[in-house]
Amino acid sequence: MRRLEVIALENLGEVQKGDSVGKLIYQACCQSRIALMQGDVLVAAHKIVSKAEGRIVRLAEVQPSARALELSRELHNKDARLVEVILSESRRIVRMGGGTLIVETRHGFICANAGVDLSNVGLGCVALLPREPDRSAREIRDKVGQLSGVMPGVIISDSFGRPWRLGTVDVAIGVSGVKPLKDDRGKNDRYGYELKASVTAVADELAAAAELVMGKRDEIPVVIIRGYGLESENGSAKELLRPEAEDLFRSS
Amino acid sequence: MRRLEVIALENLGEVQKGDSVGKLIYQACCQSRIALMQGDVLVAAHKIVSKAEGRIVRLAEVQPSARALELSRELHNKDARLVEVILSESRRIVRMGGGTLIVETRHGFICANAGVDLSNVGLGCVALLPREPDRSAREIRDKVGQLSGVMPGVIISDSFGRPWRLGTVDVAIGVSGVKPLKDDRGKNDRYGYELKASVTAVADELAAAAELVMGKRDEIPVVIIRGYGLESENGSAKELLRPEAEDLFRSS
Repeated sequence: MRRLEVIALENLGEVQKGDSVGKLIYQACCQSRIALMQGDVLVAAHKIVSKAEGRIVRLAEVQPSARALELSRELHNKDARLVEVILSESRRIVRMGGGTLIVETRHGFICANAGVDLSNVGLGCVALLPREPDRSAREIRDKVGQLSGVMPGVIISDSFGRPWRLGTVDVAIGVSGVKPLKDDRGKNDRYGYELKASVTAVADELAAAAELVMGKRDEIPVVIIRGYGLESENGSAKELLRPEAEDLFRSS
Repeated sequence: MRRLEVIALENLGEVQKGDSVGKLIYQACCQSRIALMQGDVLVAAHKIVSKAEGRIVRLAEVQPSARALELSRELHNKDARLVEVILSESRRIVRMGGGTLIVETRHGFICANAGVDLSNVGLGCVALLPREPDRSAREIRDKVGQLSGVMPGVIISDSFGRPWRLGTVDVAIGVSGVKPLKDDRGKNDRYGYELKASVTAVADELAAAAELVMGKRDEIPVVIIRGYGLESENGSAKELLRPEAEDLFRSS
Protein backbone atom coordinates (compact mmCIF):
# COMPACT_ATOMS: atom_id res chain seq x y z
CA MET A 1 0.00 0.00 0.00
CA ARG A 2 1.35 3.41 -0.93
CA ARG A 3 1.85 5.32 2.26
CA LEU A 4 3.79 8.39 3.21
CA GLU A 5 4.89 9.23 6.72
CA VAL A 6 5.51 12.80 7.80
CA ILE A 7 7.52 12.65 11.01
CA ALA A 8 8.31 15.55 13.32
CA LEU A 9 11.98 15.63 14.33
CA GLU A 10 12.11 16.65 17.95
CA ASN A 11 15.10 17.54 20.16
CA LEU A 12 16.82 19.74 17.61
CA GLY A 13 17.45 22.47 20.14
CA GLU A 14 18.23 26.13 19.55
CA VAL A 15 20.34 26.79 16.45
CA GLN A 16 23.24 29.24 16.76
CA LYS A 17 25.37 31.01 14.19
CA GLY A 18 28.08 28.68 12.96
CA ASP A 19 26.20 25.49 13.81
CA SER A 20 26.13 22.68 11.27
CA VAL A 21 22.42 22.09 10.69
CA GLY A 22 23.21 18.68 9.21
CA LYS A 23 25.03 17.65 12.38
CA LEU A 24 22.20 18.94 14.58
CA ILE A 25 19.70 16.96 12.50
CA TYR A 26 21.78 13.81 12.78
CA GLN A 27 22.11 14.24 16.54
CA ALA A 28 18.38 14.87 16.93
CA CYS A 29 17.67 11.70 14.92
CA CYS A 30 19.94 9.73 17.26
CA GLN A 31 18.31 11.24 20.34
CA SER A 32 14.84 10.48 18.95
CA ARG A 33 15.97 6.97 17.94
CA ILE A 34 15.08 7.59 14.31
CA ALA A 35 17.26 5.68 11.85
CA LEU A 36 17.23 7.50 8.53
CA MET A 37 16.30 5.31 5.58
CA GLN A 38 17.18 5.45 1.91
CA GLY A 39 14.65 7.68 0.20
CA ASP A 40 13.86 9.82 3.25
CA VAL A 41 13.37 13.52 2.56
CA LEU A 42 14.33 16.05 5.22
CA VAL A 43 12.40 19.31 5.13
CA ALA A 44 14.03 22.11 7.12
CA ALA A 45 12.38 25.46 7.81
CA HIS A 46 14.72 28.09 6.40
CA LYS A 47 14.79 29.95 9.70
CA ILE A 48 17.20 27.51 11.34
CA VAL A 49 19.42 27.58 8.25
CA SER A 50 19.37 31.38 8.27
CA LYS A 51 20.35 31.36 11.94
CA ALA A 52 23.19 28.90 11.39
CA GLU A 53 24.45 30.97 8.47
CA GLY A 54 24.30 34.22 10.41
CA ARG A 55 21.59 35.68 8.18
CA ILE A 56 20.06 37.59 11.08
CA VAL A 57 19.93 41.37 11.12
CA ARG A 58 19.42 43.58 14.16
CA LEU A 59 17.03 46.34 13.06
CA ALA A 60 18.61 48.86 15.45
CA GLU A 61 21.77 48.66 13.33
CA VAL A 62 19.97 49.40 10.03
CA GLN A 63 20.09 52.90 8.54
CA PRO A 64 17.14 53.33 6.17
CA SER A 65 17.88 54.97 2.82
CA ALA A 66 15.80 57.82 1.40
CA ARG A 67 14.05 55.27 -0.86
CA ALA A 68 13.18 53.07 2.12
CA LEU A 69 11.80 56.07 4.01
CA GLU A 70 9.67 57.02 1.02
CA LEU A 71 8.32 53.48 0.60
CA SER A 72 7.71 53.26 4.32
CA ARG A 73 5.31 56.20 4.07
CA GLU A 74 3.53 54.64 1.07
CA LEU A 75 3.20 51.39 3.03
CA HIS A 76 1.26 52.89 5.95
CA ASN A 77 4.46 53.55 7.92
CA LYS A 78 5.87 50.07 7.69
CA ASP A 79 9.16 50.11 9.66
CA ALA A 80 11.60 51.90 7.33
CA ARG A 81 14.51 49.81 8.63
CA LEU A 82 12.60 46.65 7.70
CA VAL A 83 11.84 48.16 4.27
CA GLU A 84 15.57 48.87 3.87
CA VAL A 85 16.45 45.24 4.64
CA ILE A 86 13.77 44.01 2.20
CA LEU A 87 15.09 46.26 -0.56
CA SER A 88 18.63 45.04 0.00
CA GLU A 89 17.40 41.46 -0.53
CA SER A 90 15.42 42.31 -3.68
CA ARG A 91 16.02 42.68 -7.38
CA ARG A 92 12.84 44.63 -7.85
CA ILE A 93 9.41 45.40 -6.50
CA VAL A 94 6.66 43.42 -8.25
CA ARG A 95 3.74 45.08 -6.49
CA MET A 96 2.93 46.94 -3.31
CA GLY A 97 -0.18 47.88 -1.41
CA GLY A 98 -1.87 47.59 1.97
CA GLY A 99 1.40 47.47 3.89
CA THR A 100 2.70 44.59 1.77
CA LEU A 101 5.71 44.64 -0.49
CA ILE A 102 5.79 41.85 -3.10
CA VAL A 103 9.29 41.61 -4.54
CA GLU A 104 11.49 39.43 -6.62
CA THR A 105 14.35 38.34 -4.38
CA ARG A 106 17.94 38.13 -5.54
CA HIS A 107 17.37 34.37 -5.93
CA GLY A 108 14.36 34.98 -8.21
CA PHE A 109 11.60 34.07 -5.75
CA ILE A 110 8.55 36.28 -5.88
CA CYS A 111 7.17 36.67 -2.39
CA ALA A 112 6.13 39.12 0.29
CA ASN A 113 8.88 41.10 2.02
CA ALA A 114 11.66 39.14 0.26
CA GLY A 115 11.10 36.41 2.83
CA VAL A 116 12.42 38.70 5.58
CA ASP A 117 10.72 37.56 8.74
CA LEU A 118 10.35 38.93 12.24
CA SER A 119 9.04 35.84 13.99
CA ASN A 120 11.05 33.24 15.88
CA VAL A 121 14.33 35.14 15.67
CA GLY A 122 14.35 37.31 18.78
CA LEU A 123 12.82 40.72 19.42
CA GLY A 124 14.26 43.49 17.26
CA CYS A 125 15.84 41.03 14.84
CA VAL A 126 14.83 39.74 11.42
CA ALA A 127 15.85 36.64 9.51
CA LEU A 128 16.84 36.84 5.86
CA LEU A 129 16.55 33.88 3.50
CA PRO A 130 19.74 31.86 3.07
CA ARG A 131 21.95 33.36 0.39
CA GLU A 132 22.06 30.17 -1.71
CA PRO A 133 19.38 27.80 -0.42
CA ASP A 134 20.33 24.97 -2.83
CA ARG A 135 23.85 25.07 -1.44
CA SER A 136 22.52 25.11 2.13
CA ALA A 137 20.42 22.03 1.27
CA ARG A 138 23.43 20.30 -0.26
CA GLU A 139 25.55 20.98 2.83
CA ILE A 140 22.88 19.46 5.05
CA ARG A 141 22.58 16.46 2.73
CA ASP A 142 26.33 15.91 2.65
CA LYS A 143 26.75 16.22 6.41
CA VAL A 144 23.80 13.97 7.26
CA GLY A 145 24.99 11.49 4.64
CA GLN A 146 28.51 11.49 6.04
CA LEU A 147 27.36 10.97 9.64
CA SER A 148 24.50 8.53 9.06
CA GLY A 149 25.61 6.67 5.94
CA VAL A 150 22.28 7.50 4.29
CA MET A 151 21.98 10.33 1.76
CA PRO A 152 18.56 11.91 2.31
CA GLY A 153 16.79 14.31 0.00
CA VAL A 154 16.80 17.79 1.55
CA ILE A 155 14.35 20.64 1.08
CA ILE A 156 14.67 24.10 2.65
CA SER A 157 11.18 25.56 3.03
CA ASP A 158 9.50 28.88 3.64
CA SER A 159 5.87 29.97 4.03
CA PHE A 160 4.70 31.98 1.01
CA GLY A 161 1.44 33.82 0.52
CA ARG A 162 -0.35 33.56 -2.82
CA PRO A 163 -2.44 35.76 -5.05
CA TRP A 164 -6.17 34.95 -4.97
CA ARG A 165 -6.00 32.53 -2.06
CA LEU A 166 -5.73 33.35 1.63
CA GLY A 167 -3.25 31.77 3.97
CA THR A 168 0.33 30.76 3.37
CA VAL A 169 1.53 27.39 2.15
CA ASP A 170 5.08 26.19 2.56
CA VAL A 171 7.17 25.90 -0.59
CA ALA A 172 10.69 24.73 -1.42
CA ILE A 173 13.31 27.46 -1.70
CA GLY A 174 16.29 25.11 -1.80
CA VAL A 175 16.66 21.43 -2.67
CA SER A 176 19.35 18.79 -2.84
CA GLY A 177 18.88 15.19 -3.94
CA VAL A 178 15.28 15.95 -4.89
CA LYS A 179 13.89 16.55 -8.36
CA PRO A 180 11.51 19.45 -7.70
CA LEU A 181 9.21 18.92 -10.69
CA LYS A 182 7.55 15.66 -11.68
CA ASP A 183 6.83 15.65 -15.40
CA ASP A 184 4.09 13.27 -16.57
CA ARG A 185 3.67 14.95 -19.95
CA GLY A 186 3.55 12.47 -22.80
CA LYS A 187 2.24 9.64 -20.62
CA ASN A 188 -1.23 8.34 -21.44
CA ASP A 189 -4.12 8.17 -19.04
CA ARG A 190 -6.26 5.04 -18.77
CA TYR A 191 -8.38 6.18 -21.70
CA GLY A 192 -5.42 6.70 -24.03
CA TYR A 193 -5.45 10.49 -23.67
CA GLU A 194 -1.94 11.92 -23.66
CA LEU A 195 -1.32 14.10 -20.62
CA LYS A 196 -0.32 17.58 -21.77
CA ALA A 197 -0.17 19.77 -18.71
CA SER A 198 0.89 17.41 -15.98
CA VAL A 199 3.95 18.89 -14.35
CA THR A 200 3.70 18.74 -10.58
CA ALA A 201 5.73 20.82 -8.15
CA VAL A 202 6.44 17.88 -5.87
CA ALA A 203 9.11 19.73 -3.86
CA ASP A 204 6.52 22.35 -2.98
CA GLU A 205 4.03 19.63 -2.06
CA LEU A 206 6.62 17.95 0.16
CA ALA A 207 7.28 21.31 1.85
CA ALA A 208 3.52 21.82 2.30
CA ALA A 209 3.10 18.34 3.80
CA ALA A 210 5.94 19.04 6.23
CA GLU A 211 4.37 22.30 7.39
CA LEU A 212 1.37 20.37 8.70
CA VAL A 213 3.54 18.94 11.48
CA MET A 214 5.92 21.91 11.80
CA GLY A 215 3.47 24.60 12.86
CA LYS A 216 4.26 28.28 12.92
CA ARG A 217 6.10 28.68 16.18
CA ASP A 218 9.22 26.81 15.26
CA GLU A 219 8.73 24.00 17.74
CA ILE A 220 9.47 21.55 14.93
CA PRO A 221 11.77 23.11 12.33
CA VAL A 222 12.72 19.79 10.70
CA VAL A 223 10.45 17.05 9.40
CA ILE A 224 11.27 13.68 7.88
CA ILE A 225 9.11 12.47 4.99
CA ARG A 226 9.33 8.73 4.49
CA GLY A 227 7.90 6.64 1.69
CA TYR A 228 7.97 9.20 -1.09
CA GLY A 229 9.45 7.49 -4.12
CA LEU A 230 12.54 9.66 -4.26
CA GLU A 231 14.31 9.39 -7.60
CA SER A 232 18.06 9.54 -7.53
CA GLU A 233 18.22 12.59 -9.76
CA ASN A 234 19.33 15.86 -8.35
CA GLY A 235 17.80 19.27 -8.95
CA SER A 236 17.67 22.92 -8.03
CA ALA A 237 14.85 24.98 -6.56
CA LYS A 238 15.46 27.33 -9.47
CA GLU A 239 13.63 24.80 -11.65
CA LEU A 240 10.48 25.87 -9.80
CA LEU A 241 10.80 29.47 -11.00
CA ARG A 242 8.55 30.29 -13.92
CA PRO A 243 10.55 32.13 -16.61
CA GLU A 244 9.43 35.75 -16.88
CA ALA A 245 8.49 35.35 -20.55
CA GLU A 246 5.99 32.60 -19.65
CA ASP A 247 4.50 34.45 -16.72
CA LEU A 248 1.16 36.20 -17.10
CA PHE A 249 1.41 37.90 -13.70
CA ARG A 250 4.96 39.19 -13.55
CA SER A 251 4.72 42.80 -14.65
CA SER A 252 4.44 45.37 -11.90
CA MET B 1 5.92 11.97 18.42
CA ARG B 2 3.94 14.05 15.96
CA ARG B 3 3.47 11.99 12.84
CA LEU B 4 1.14 12.18 9.89
CA GLU B 5 0.28 9.28 7.66
CA VAL B 6 -0.81 9.81 4.07
CA ILE B 7 -2.43 6.58 2.93
CA ALA B 8 -3.46 5.69 -0.63
CA LEU B 9 -6.95 4.23 -0.77
CA GLU B 10 -6.91 1.47 -3.34
CA ASN B 11 -9.75 -0.58 -4.83
CA LEU B 12 -12.07 2.35 -5.42
CA GLY B 13 -12.90 1.24 -8.94
CA GLU B 14 -14.32 3.26 -11.81
CA VAL B 15 -16.80 5.94 -10.75
CA GLN B 16 -20.04 6.26 -12.76
CA LYS B 17 -22.64 8.98 -12.92
CA GLY B 18 -25.04 8.59 -10.02
CA ASP B 19 -22.60 6.74 -7.78
CA SER B 20 -22.31 7.74 -4.14
CA VAL B 21 -18.63 8.60 -3.73
CA GLY B 22 -19.01 8.26 0.03
CA LYS B 23 -20.31 4.72 -0.33
CA LEU B 24 -17.52 3.80 -2.77
CA ILE B 25 -14.95 5.16 -0.33
CA TYR B 26 -16.45 3.18 2.54
CA GLN B 27 -16.46 -0.01 0.45
CA ALA B 28 -12.85 0.56 -0.65
CA CYS B 29 -11.84 1.04 2.99
CA CYS B 30 -13.51 -2.27 3.88
CA GLN B 31 -11.86 -4.06 0.98
CA SER B 32 -8.46 -2.60 1.93
CA ARG B 33 -9.10 -3.42 5.60
CA ILE B 34 -8.69 0.19 6.63
CA ALA B 35 -10.75 1.16 9.66
CA LEU B 36 -11.34 4.90 9.59
CA MET B 37 -10.37 6.67 12.77
CA GLN B 38 -11.63 9.82 14.45
CA GLY B 39 -9.67 12.75 13.00
CA ASP B 40 -8.96 11.13 9.63
CA VAL B 41 -9.16 13.46 6.65
CA LEU B 42 -10.25 12.05 3.29
CA VAL B 43 -8.90 13.91 0.27
CA ALA B 44 -10.76 13.13 -2.97
CA ALA B 45 -9.61 14.28 -6.41
CA HIS B 46 -12.49 16.30 -7.82
CA LYS B 47 -12.54 14.19 -10.99
CA ILE B 48 -14.34 11.28 -9.34
CA VAL B 49 -16.83 13.67 -7.76
CA SER B 50 -17.41 15.34 -11.13
CA LYS B 51 -18.01 11.94 -12.71
CA ALA B 52 -20.44 10.86 -10.00
CA GLU B 53 -22.31 14.15 -10.33
CA GLY B 54 -22.48 13.89 -14.11
CA ARG B 55 -20.29 16.95 -14.63
CA ILE B 56 -18.81 15.49 -17.81
CA VAL B 57 -19.31 17.16 -21.17
CA ARG B 58 -18.87 15.53 -24.57
CA LEU B 59 -17.08 18.12 -26.73
CA ALA B 60 -18.80 16.86 -29.90
CA GLU B 61 -22.07 18.12 -28.41
CA VAL B 62 -20.79 21.65 -27.74
CA GLN B 63 -21.64 24.48 -30.14
CA PRO B 64 -19.04 27.24 -29.73
CA SER B 65 -20.35 30.80 -29.55
CA ALA B 66 -18.92 33.65 -31.60
CA ARG B 67 -17.04 34.81 -28.49
CA ALA B 68 -15.52 31.36 -28.02
CA LEU B 69 -14.46 31.25 -31.67
CA GLU B 70 -12.83 34.66 -31.33
CA LEU B 71 -10.96 33.69 -28.15
CA SER B 72 -9.95 30.41 -29.73
CA ARG B 73 -8.11 32.31 -32.45
CA GLU B 74 -6.41 34.57 -29.88
CA LEU B 75 -5.34 31.46 -27.95
CA HIS B 76 -3.39 29.83 -30.79
CA ASN B 77 -6.44 27.87 -31.99
CA LYS B 78 -7.29 26.34 -28.65
CA ASP B 79 -10.32 24.07 -29.27
CA ALA B 80 -13.25 26.50 -29.53
CA ARG B 81 -15.63 23.94 -27.99
CA LEU B 82 -13.33 23.70 -24.99
CA VAL B 83 -13.18 27.51 -24.80
CA GLU B 84 -16.99 27.56 -24.87
CA VAL B 85 -17.16 25.14 -21.95
CA ILE B 86 -14.59 27.18 -20.02
CA LEU B 87 -16.54 30.41 -20.59
CA SER B 88 -19.76 28.77 -19.43
CA GLU B 89 -18.01 27.87 -16.14
CA SER B 90 -16.52 31.34 -15.63
CA ARG B 91 -17.55 34.66 -14.19
CA ARG B 92 -14.81 36.48 -16.03
CA ILE B 93 -11.44 36.20 -17.66
CA VAL B 94 -8.60 37.32 -15.41
CA ARG B 95 -5.81 36.98 -17.96
CA MET B 96 -5.00 35.12 -21.14
CA GLY B 97 -1.90 34.37 -23.16
CA GLY B 98 0.13 31.56 -24.62
CA GLY B 99 -2.85 29.26 -25.07
CA THR B 100 -3.87 29.65 -21.43
CA LEU B 101 -7.06 31.17 -20.14
CA ILE B 102 -6.95 32.22 -16.48
CA VAL B 103 -10.49 32.80 -15.25
CA GLU B 104 -12.51 33.33 -12.14
CA THR B 105 -14.90 30.39 -11.92
CA ARG B 106 -18.52 30.72 -10.82
CA HIS B 107 -17.37 29.49 -7.39
CA GLY B 108 -14.76 32.28 -7.20
CA PHE B 109 -11.64 30.17 -7.81
CA ILE B 110 -9.02 31.76 -10.01
CA CYS B 111 -7.39 29.06 -12.10
CA ALA B 112 -6.48 27.96 -15.61
CA ASN B 113 -9.35 26.86 -17.86
CA ALA B 114 -11.93 27.09 -15.05
CA GLY B 115 -10.66 23.71 -13.86
CA VAL B 116 -12.06 22.08 -17.02
CA ASP B 117 -9.88 19.07 -17.65
CA LEU B 118 -9.39 16.64 -20.51
CA SER B 119 -7.41 13.96 -18.72
CA ASN B 120 -8.78 10.82 -17.08
CA VAL B 121 -12.34 11.31 -18.33
CA GLY B 122 -12.41 9.51 -21.68
CA LEU B 123 -11.41 10.71 -25.12
CA GLY B 124 -13.49 13.60 -26.44
CA CYS B 125 -14.86 14.39 -22.98
CA VAL B 126 -14.02 17.01 -20.39
CA ALA B 127 -14.70 17.15 -16.67
CA LEU B 128 -16.06 20.30 -15.05
CA LEU B 129 -15.52 21.14 -11.41
CA PRO B 130 -18.36 20.07 -9.12
CA ARG B 131 -21.05 22.74 -8.97
CA GLU B 132 -20.85 23.15 -5.18
CA PRO B 133 -17.71 21.42 -3.95
CA ASP B 134 -18.40 22.13 -0.27
CA ARG B 135 -21.74 20.37 -0.64
CA SER B 136 -20.08 17.46 -2.44
CA ALA B 137 -17.60 17.20 0.44
CA ARG B 138 -20.42 17.29 2.97
CA GLU B 139 -22.31 14.52 1.19
CA ILE B 140 -19.20 12.32 1.23
CA ARG B 141 -18.65 13.10 4.89
CA ASP B 142 -22.25 12.32 5.81
CA LYS B 143 -22.34 9.06 3.84
CA VAL B 144 -19.00 7.80 5.14
CA GLY B 145 -20.02 8.82 8.66
CA GLN B 146 -23.35 7.01 8.37
CA LEU B 147 -21.75 3.80 7.05
CA SER B 148 -18.60 3.70 9.18
CA GLY B 149 -19.69 5.42 12.36
CA VAL B 150 -16.72 7.82 12.06
CA MET B 151 -17.15 11.33 10.69
CA PRO B 152 -14.01 12.12 8.72
CA GLY B 153 -12.91 15.50 7.48
CA VAL B 154 -13.33 15.67 3.71
CA ILE B 155 -11.44 17.75 1.15
CA ILE B 156 -12.17 17.85 -2.59
CA SER B 157 -8.94 18.72 -4.41
CA ASP B 158 -7.78 19.92 -7.78
CA SER B 159 -4.35 20.67 -9.28
CA PHE B 160 -3.84 24.41 -9.77
CA GLY B 161 -1.00 26.20 -11.50
CA ARG B 162 0.47 29.31 -9.91
CA PRO B 163 1.93 32.61 -11.03
CA TRP B 164 5.71 32.79 -10.73
CA ARG B 165 6.25 29.12 -9.93
CA LEU B 166 6.23 26.19 -12.32
CA GLY B 167 4.29 23.01 -11.75
CA THR B 168 0.88 22.50 -10.22
CA VAL B 169 0.13 21.89 -6.57
CA ASP B 170 -3.11 20.42 -5.35
CA VAL B 171 -5.42 22.73 -3.44
CA ALA B 172 -8.77 22.37 -1.67
CA ILE B 173 -11.82 23.40 -3.69
CA GLY B 174 -14.36 21.95 -1.26
CA VAL B 175 -14.20 21.02 2.41
CA SER B 176 -16.42 19.57 5.10
CA GLY B 177 -15.47 19.02 8.72
CA VAL B 178 -12.17 20.78 8.14
CA LYS B 179 -11.26 24.32 9.06
CA PRO B 180 -9.32 25.43 5.96
CA LEU B 181 -7.30 28.21 7.59
CA LYS B 182 -5.23 27.92 10.76
CA ASP B 183 -4.89 31.28 12.40
CA ASP B 184 -1.94 31.74 14.75
CA ARG B 185 -2.14 35.52 14.81
CA GLY B 186 -1.90 36.97 18.27
CA LYS B 187 0.07 34.04 19.64
CA ASN B 188 3.59 34.74 20.83
CA ASP B 189 6.72 33.03 19.57
CA ARG B 190 9.36 31.76 22.01
CA TYR B 191 10.95 35.21 22.14
CA GLY B 192 7.71 36.98 23.03
CA TYR B 193 7.17 38.35 19.52
CA GLU B 194 3.48 38.39 18.61
CA LEU B 195 2.83 36.58 15.33
CA LYS B 196 1.15 38.97 12.91
CA ALA B 197 0.94 37.21 9.58
CA SER B 198 0.58 33.57 10.51
CA VAL B 199 -2.50 32.28 8.76
CA THR B 200 -1.85 28.94 7.13
CA ALA B 201 -3.94 27.38 4.38
CA VAL B 202 -3.92 23.95 5.99
CA ALA B 203 -6.66 22.56 3.70
CA ASP B 204 -4.44 23.37 0.72
CA GLU B 205 -1.46 21.77 2.45
CA LEU B 206 -3.50 18.64 3.17
CA ALA B 207 -4.53 18.51 -0.50
CA ALA B 208 -0.88 18.96 -1.55
CA ALA B 209 0.25 16.18 0.79
CA ALA B 210 -2.40 13.87 -0.66
CA GLU B 211 -1.28 14.54 -4.24
CA LEU B 212 2.11 13.03 -3.43
CA VAL B 213 0.50 9.59 -3.23
CA MET B 214 -2.29 10.23 -5.77
CA GLY B 215 -0.23 10.91 -8.84
CA LYS B 216 -1.61 12.37 -12.03
CA ARG B 217 -3.16 9.35 -13.72
CA ASP B 218 -6.00 8.83 -11.31
CA GLU B 219 -4.82 5.47 -10.07
CA ILE B 220 -5.40 6.74 -6.54
CA PRO B 221 -8.18 9.35 -6.47
CA VAL B 222 -8.73 9.15 -2.70
CA VAL B 223 -6.19 9.46 0.09
CA ILE B 224 -6.58 9.19 3.85
CA ILE B 225 -4.56 11.55 6.03
CA ARG B 226 -4.23 10.30 9.56
CA GLY B 227 -2.74 12.08 12.56
CA TYR B 228 -3.52 15.66 11.60
CA GLY B 229 -4.99 17.31 14.66
CA LEU B 230 -8.39 17.90 13.11
CA GLU B 231 -10.41 20.44 15.05
CA SER B 232 -14.11 19.81 15.28
CA GLU B 233 -14.97 23.11 13.64
CA ASN B 234 -16.45 23.12 10.19
CA GLY B 235 -15.59 25.43 7.33
CA SER B 236 -15.98 26.25 3.68
CA ALA B 237 -13.41 26.32 0.90
CA LYS B 238 -14.69 29.84 0.24
CA GLU B 239 -12.69 30.93 3.28
CA LEU B 240 -9.59 30.30 1.17
CA LEU B 241 -10.62 32.90 -1.41
CA ARG B 242 -8.84 36.20 -1.02
CA PRO B 243 -11.37 39.05 -1.19
CA GLU B 244 -10.90 41.10 -4.35
CA ALA B 245 -10.27 44.30 -2.38
CA GLU B 246 -7.28 42.68 -0.62
CA ASP B 247 -5.82 41.17 -3.78
CA LEU B 248 -2.86 42.83 -5.47
CA PHE B 249 -3.05 40.54 -8.53
CA ARG B 250 -6.75 40.39 -9.37
CA SER B 251 -7.22 43.00 -12.08
CA SER B 252 -7.15 41.76 -15.64
